[in-house]
Amino acid sequence: MAPRARLLRLAATSCSRNGVATATSCTRLVTSSAPSALRQFSASTARRFAGSPVVWKAKLTSETYTNLKRDDKFAQLTQEHVDFFKTLLGSESAVIDGTSQDLTEEMIPFNEDWMHKYRGQSKLVVKPASTEEVSKILKYCNDNMLAVVPQGGNTGLVGGSIPVFDEVIINMSRMNQIHSFDDVSGSLVLDAGVVLEAADQYVAERGYIFPLDLGAKGSCHVGGNVATNAGGLRLLRYGSLHGSVLGMEAVLPDGTIMNDLCTLRKNNTGYDLKQLFIGAEGTLGIITKLCIQCPQRSPAVNVAFLGLESYEKAQLAFREAKSQLSEILSAFELMDGLSQDLVHRVRQGKKPLDDEHPFYCLIETSGSNGEHDYEKLEKFLEDVMSNEIVSDGVVAQDATQVKSLWSWREGVPECVGHWGGVYKYDVSIPLSDMYRIVPDTEKRMREAGLLGDTDEFPVLGVIGYGHMGDANIHLNVAVRRYDKAVEKELEPWVYQWIQERQGSISAEHGLGLAKKNYIKYSRNEVFMGMMKQIKQLYDPNGIMNPYKYV
Amino acid sequence: MAPRARLLRLAATSCSRNGVATATSCTRLVTSSAPSALRQFSASTARRFAGSPVVWKAKLTSETYTNLKRDDKFAQLTQEHVDFFKTLLGSESAVIDGTSQDLTEEMIPFNEDWMHKYRGQSKLVVKPASTEEVSKILKYCNDNMLAVVPQGGNTGLVGGSIPVFDEVIINMSRMNQIHSFDDVSGSLVLDAGVVLEAADQYVAERGYIFPLDLGAKGSCHVGGNVATNAGGLRLLRYGSLHGSVLGMEAVLPDGTIMNDLCTLRKNNTGYDLKQLFIGAEGTLGIITKLCIQCPQRSPAVNVAFLGLESYEKAQLAFREAKSQLSEILSAFELMDGLSQDLVHRVRQGKKPLDDEHPFYCLIETSGSNGEHDYEKLEKFLEDVMSNEIVSDGVVAQDATQVKSLWSWREGVPECVGHWGGVYKYDVSIPLSDMYRIVPDTEKRMREAGLLGDTDEFPVLGVIGYGHMGDANIHLNVAVRRYDKAVEKELEPWVYQWIQERQGSISAEHGLGLAKKNYIKYSRNEVFMGMMKQIKQLYDPNGIMNPYKYV
Repeated sequence: MAPRARLLRLAATSCSRNGVATATSCTRLVTSSAPSALRQFSASTARRFAGSPVVWKAKLTSETYTNLKRDDKFAQLTQEHVDFFKTLLGSESAVIDGTSQDLTEEMIPFNEDWMHKYRGQSKLVVKPASTEEVSKILKYCNDNMLAVVPQGGNTGLVGGSIPVFDEVIINMSRMNQIHSFDDVSGSLVLDAGVVLEAADQYVAERGYIFPLDLGAKGSCHVGGNVATNAGGLRLLRYGSLHGSVLGMEAVLPDGTIMNDLCTLRKNNTGYDLKQLFIGAEGTLGIITKLCIQCPQRSPAVNVAFLGLESYEKAQLAFREAKSQLSEILSAFELMDGLSQDLVHRVRQGKKPLDDEHPFYCLIETSGSNGEHDYEKLEKFLEDVMSNEIVSDGVVAQDATQVKSLWSWREGVPECVGHWGGVYKYDVSIPLSDMYRIVPDTEKRMREAGLLGDTDEFPVLGVIGYGHMGDANIHLNVAVRRYDKAVEKELEPWVYQWIQERQGSISAEHGLGLAKKNYIKYSRNEVFMGMMKQIKQLYDPNGIMNPYKYV
Repeated sequence: MAPRARLLRLAATSCSRNGVATATSCTRLVTSSAPSALRQFSASTARRFAGSPVVWKAKLTSETYTNLKRDDKFAQLTQEHVDFFKTLLGSESAVIDGTSQDLTEEMIPFNEDWMHKYRGQSKLVVKPASTEEVSKILKYCNDNMLAVVPQGGNTGLVGGSIPVFDEVIINMSRMNQIHSFDDVSGSLVLDAGVVLEAADQYVAERGYIFPLDLGAKGSCHVGGNVATNAGGLRLLRYGSLHGSVLGMEAVLPDGTIMNDLCTLRKNNTGYDLKQLFIGAEGTLGIITKLCIQCPQRSPAVNVAFLGLESYEKAQLAFREAKSQLSEILSAFELMDGLSQDLVHRVRQGKKPLDDEHPFYCLIETSGSNGEHDYEKLEKFLEDVMSNEIVSDGVVAQDATQVKSLWSWREGVPECVGHWGGVYKYDVSIPLSDMYRIVPDTEKRMREAGLLGDTDEFPVLGVIGYGHMGDANIHLNVAVRRYDKAVEKELEPWVYQWIQERQGSISAEHGLGLAKKNYIKYSRNEVFMGMMKQIKQLYDPNGIMNPYKYV
């Protein structure tokens, strides 16, 4: 029997470019997976946190990682230090002084991550409003051996922006201005503390797109995105931040301001030092300003949702999509059957496809002409369905359906945690082997007697989903409760599995505290030695984000 | 009167993807501006050079730059050194020993650049065939204080790959293997010494495109391209090498091998150290292998050639092309009237447009569907012509016409030198100001009494052309003869002009020897200090490509 095609026509008119409002309505609206409460750090918000069991969900990081000891070389915070910062920053709201008893609660949103996995013990948050203030803060901390943690929107997944002990938190939320935009070249100059979504909206109003998009867009800062080399949903189309960041201003630990705020696409005048700060996770200095190359925004967006019978067929579909959709392909996402089943169990409602399939793919195209794009997509779908590469599929008919189809992909991280907790691994693996990590992990859990349908088993399922276009899979082990036995079976086994296949143990989430000890599975001794050299060069006192990364 | 449109229909069938041969025939064939003789360094080739006046056209660099002195810290080459290399490399052809009288001539192609602007005095060329050999060569040189020059295809424009004094030349032409290609992800692993055109042809046969293209593609090495962060003709569409280079293997001066030959698009495990070597011009180490992300090749290529009455209208046309052609726009090149007049005076024949225009633009689209692309291009051309942004235009009808139209852009560098010489400046300037450097320079030459129509004036014209899509202009001062008076009027005035507008004094050609002393016009003291720190870290003995760059 020939596979059944249900091709819903995308209303091209509703998605053709017609002012900003329409353009935006055709853009996928990403569900933020970071709590919006983090967007406002007011005293009242903090008080709302107080008393809620959520607040205390995280154990102190120092209790979770008992092998970590506070480094004695760092000074203890004194009243004199606090007074210096208060005098320097002037504004009442620019310093949160946790050394005074009544402000302890207010420190909570800065000391704990949104997943409640990490909790620090910082007593001081400083919020500079200018590069010069950042410079003076860092110089003072460096001179006085005060350890610091740079902090953006605090939406990270590896504990990079949360102190471990009593590090001073340098929060960048007050540096949130957009400085200039060249609407011929598309180069955008802005402060590191601008929220990603605000930056994207600003350029959207001018016909451009920010080259990065991710779940936490409503909270995360562009400075944090660059510091962690965030990958996200647009990398397939627009490439990595190493290509998109045209210019950078950053402050070194000794207060030196590196001004490389170039707005040009081509600049071959010396070592491209800004590249070192992209992905350094705040261990070399603090990014204060950026210039980003923004591409033209595509007014027409089409989305298809496909069911496939095997991972091999998903690879064939990807190869064919690259070939036929080429320049308009903007996303190719993979979700396995169990991941979609979990989303359905949590959310209920009608599924995009009636039948069950072992795999699902979400394909997005973005282009300047909706009719052309739809024609290409239709031809592609006819081909992959008549060749039985794809078993079933639907195409979004309007912006609401675009959003709805995306929600089946974007809802996974949230829904998979519904039953208790999740062990998350964000990894890159060459495509031919990529999905195999999921059944291999599942088998390992089952053989260890940890996986089953009833409450006695901690693990309820192992799922895989992610950015197939970037060979980036999120391996998630859904658990009813966190259990040391599960962790012991998973680590370092998962990292060894990846190492054997020349994969990367951290595709896009970074190292932070979580993966500091596992870097050897992706890097050799020589490379790690070279990393330490660079750290030593820029931060000889080691005050920048200690206990993490390198 | 409405502008006359001559829209020649591109025969979509001839350009649709139909095996490799057709795909290649639809791809623009770039005229190499580097002499093909440099591709083969056989003894017979060298003998052919001998006696030719071309060979001796270049003065010794040490005579041109009289302020440069050989650094006494470097050892003089001895027979013992030469013997070491002969024993290490074994193969007869792997060492060219210029210390013996009869091989002096054979050294010439390695000691002189193709423009005959730079000439070194090296007595030894070594050609390693493996990373281990590169490592042993560098360690030996470092231990013995022998200065070295890494050399790829030797097609550079700033003297970076030519020794200044007696540096040992490490030529990479024997490391020329392609190691692997993943035809699902498009990642290509290859040696640094692979010729760019060979790499592009290899991936073209598999439906992919190398993300870089430039005039010297027939001679230049991919290792040299990455070491100089070459920009070229595809940057507008595929971005910079900082985004396209996924992995790198490089050897440090002390022989340490940095292995970061990742084949994955996402890898956030530590500092991205390979980025430092992109654009370092061989001053930190030698790149030995690369992994490059190759995009899907577009089977359909359309080219339009337009006449415009002002630079302001060229900017409007660019803005409109970005908006309407968006994802299929692969080149937007600018040529001024005089540049096209010079090409015509040299080549004669029929010009693309009958009338003269102050400016010309060449627009290329590349996409997966020729019909769609042509429809978009036609709509764009109708709009810009009916709005009188563009005065006249033609569209290529077949691959021959595509090549012919491109030759009017690509022929400029060659034709402009027809009357004697050229002072060349490769610069980036924010778009609104970009072209103004040309009339300002012309005015300066005229006011100094240096420009005129008769032989008494050294300067015959000042032209501008380049990659408008990248805000990258090539300012060329065509001269009947090189003249110190011209040079004195041009430098540092040109660099000051660029500095005042926050431009870059080296957009894509690099620093090399030519611009080492002018970097201060694009970089401040702090940045230059940070560059020196990095140089000191990796090359404390300073043996790598001395007298240049930093």
